[in-house]
Amino acid sequence: MPHIPLPEGLPGITGLLEYRLDTAKPIREMTQVLLRGPSTLTQGERELIATYVSHRNECRFCATAHTAAADLLLGEGETSRAVKENLDEAPVSEKMRALLTIAGKVQQSGLSVTEDDIAAARRQGATDLEIHDTVLIAALFCLYNRYVDGMAAWTPDEPAFYERLADRIVNRGYTRPPEGFANHTYTSTVS
Amino acid sequence: MPHIPLPEGLPGITGLLEYRLDTAKPIREMTQVLLRGPSTLTQGERELIATYVSHRNECRFCATAHTAAADLLLGEGETSRAVKENLDEAPVSEKMRALLTIAGKVQQSGLSVTEDDIAAARRQGATDLEIHDTVLIAALFCLYNRYVDGMAAWTPDEPAFYERLADRIVNRGYTRPPEGFANHTYTSTVS
Repeated sequence: MPHIPLPEGLPGITGLLEYRLDTAKPIREMTQVLLRGPSTLTQGERELIATYVSHRNECRFCATAHTAAADLLLGEGETSRAVKENLDEAPVSEKMRALLTIAGKVQQSGLSVTEDDIAAARRQGATDLEIHDTVLIAALFCLYNRYVDGMAAWTPDEPAFYERLADRIVNRGYTRPPEGFANHTYTSTVS
Repeated sequence: MPHIPLPEGLPGITGLLEYRLDTAKPIREMTQVLLRGPSTLTQGERELIATYVSHRNECRFCATAHTAAADLLLGEGETSRAVKENLDEAPVSEKMRALLTIAGKVQQSGLSVTEDDIAAARRQGATDLEIHDTVLIAALFCLYNRYVDGMAAWTPDEPAFYERLADRIVNRGYTRPPEGFANHTYTSTVS
């Protein structure tokens, strides 16, 4: 049960984004730019950062949704599973391992990120912008995770819901979906 | 020393917001709507939420800047000092004490916010929207604090810098300042 009444049939962040449209607009825009805009990090890599941070914040809605998005983009589910279970052994590039390590530090506190963490990422070829974007994506998901769980937003159990949500954010991005689609995301998925 | 080269003369978040303008735009917009837009919470009360969360995240840049903004809006510095030192005894309304308690929970994790925390705020007259905005402001400053400290952005010591920054965000808001003003914020303050 959400802490305040939210639009019906819209689980997790989706109901919150319809609750207050003037704050939702910049949140959507920032996510679209960071996760779908031009970048030397692939969309799959950026979704892995979102997944890793959301998993560490124990935000079940966001972790499940972004795992599904990362899996769809990567074409397999092994990488996201391994990243969440044990980053040291996960089948990612050494650059991504260093960037995910930084993201994991940001999840705890910005103050946890050390010069050594940055130097390690640079040694693996990470650029200034990739380091910047990793920190900002991690910080953004610290916002999202707190927003969703701080409002006790509804978290469905059905995998079908997350698959449909992943399809939407992979193929249409983070902009506001057309009216009608938004209003029946959940019911049209599970019924 | 910031972890990546940032525009000179722009401490803390100000340099980061000039580093990548397309992500800065929605961050500025969200802050302007939440902290300066129409609300039944005063601007001073909303700056107190930002101050409290930034203080708990030990983000010296943000805590000092938003303390200065709250003090300017409230016309005194005792309330912000007391909120940071001991919320239970601080001279704020019981509604604000309940909302700041929720903000403090969000700072730890969205999952920390309980039904009882929400019920306590409602008993003191907090509306659904005030609860929503408190959670989102707290979440937003968890982003800001991580962004600033995760990039090791430059944190000046001089109180004069924060007074000038507070004057700007109180009197001009969080939109991007005119060119020239932005580029010499620090040097024009301390020289």
